[in-house]
Amino acid sequence: MMPQITTIPARSGKATQIQKGQLIKLINTHGEQVIDTWAFNALDVTEFMSMEHSRVHLLKLRPEVGDTFITNQRRPILTLLEDTSPGIHDTMLAACDETRYKLLGCSEYHQNCTDNLSAGMAELGFKKQETPSPLNLFMNIPWTEKGSLTLGRPTSKPGDYIALRAEMDAVVAFSACPQDLLPINGPAQQPTEAHFQILSFP
Amino acid sequence: MMPQITTIPARSGKATQIQKGQLIKLINTHGEQVIDTWAFNALDVTEFMSMEHSRVHLLKLRPEVGDTFITNQRRPILTLLEDTSPGIHDTMLAACDETRYKLLGCSEYHQNCTDNLSAGMAELGFKKQETPSPLNLFMNIPWTEKGSLTLGRPTSKPGDYIALRAEMDAVVAFSACPQDLLPINGPAQQPTEAHFQILSFP
Repeated sequence: MMPQITTIPARSGKATQIQKGQLIKLINTHGEQVIDTWAFNALDVTEFMSMEHSRVHLLKLRPEVGDTFITNQRRPILTLLEDTSPGIHDTMLAACDETRYKLLGCSEYHQNCTDNLSAGMAELGFKKQETPSPLNLFMNIPWTEKGSLTLGRPTSKPGDYIALRAEMDAVVAFSACPQDLLPINGPAQQPTEAHFQILSFP
Repeated sequence: MMPQITTIPARSGKATQIQKGQLIKLINTHGEQVIDTWAFNALDVTEFMSMEHSRVHLLKLRPEVGDTFITNQRRPILTLLEDTSPGIHDTMLAACDETRYKLLGCSEYHQNCTDNLSAGMAELGFKKQETPSPLNLFMNIPWTEKGSLTLGRPTSKPGDYIALRAEMDAVVAFSACPQDLLPINGPAQQPTEAHFQILSFP
């Protein structure tokens, strides 16, 4: 039986429960869409995947296939098992939020990854406590020797996917980043949908 | 009148209130001590200096003199006004905690920056809600082009100091990092005290 495909609508968020040992496959359907990604312990959402703890654990700015992310309690939560993209992802930048768009000049409400996380969690009945620093999949933030960062064009192509294995029963949340004022989702500045599947292995 | 000097005892934490416009001068008295640093809005400690939001704002991995850190609500909180050290500080790694030392092999309780933050805040009557990702002053974490991180030797010398200006009424907390199992506080692996002063300008 083909595993069900779930759509993450453009500019929106979606969360799902995943059991320890299951894989979640995230597909960059149209190729250049950044997906902000979070994971929470399903039994206690105050424990969550932490970029700052994972950087200590991995001693890397950017994860590679085989690497395991840890929580703010330093326990394994997700392993990057497969990646068909060139492997350019970001662990350093905060999720966008309404304030970010106001500072960029928006006078009206703009969809944002922080609210998308809340909405995705609320659909599953979880009240989100805070917005952990996200794993920004497919986001290209090159750094220089001196530490300057730039907002680069995603290097992923349509259909590229990554597979993450759950190391504990978890809630995984995705936001198809609604950023359309800066070219972080590609030069067209046109946020697109993405898709995910949960795969179980015997 | 000489401003009062406060000691941050070796392996311990200390917090202080500081008014908007005041400067806090942090002195690396013995030269190679890493100081984990946090700042909170004095009126609402759920608003705090955020490394991930500051990296978006500054587009830098490492702050330089003149740079302003922002909070998780993207408001200015501290400005790095002066730095007599070579300017090597870290914004990427989580504070150490009891779990970190257990994973490094400690079978008994080990002092740690997370508990030092709590203790410093408690002395002022604040109940800490969480441990934001710290500004690790004087911590030397070199990165490579591919994103590998290493735990480097501090480049600061005895008496080096940094001055931070408060951009809002804030609580600033410091922890003289108790790490003595790794050479992050210098090859002697001997955590030392540090000092700070609050300076007011007319």
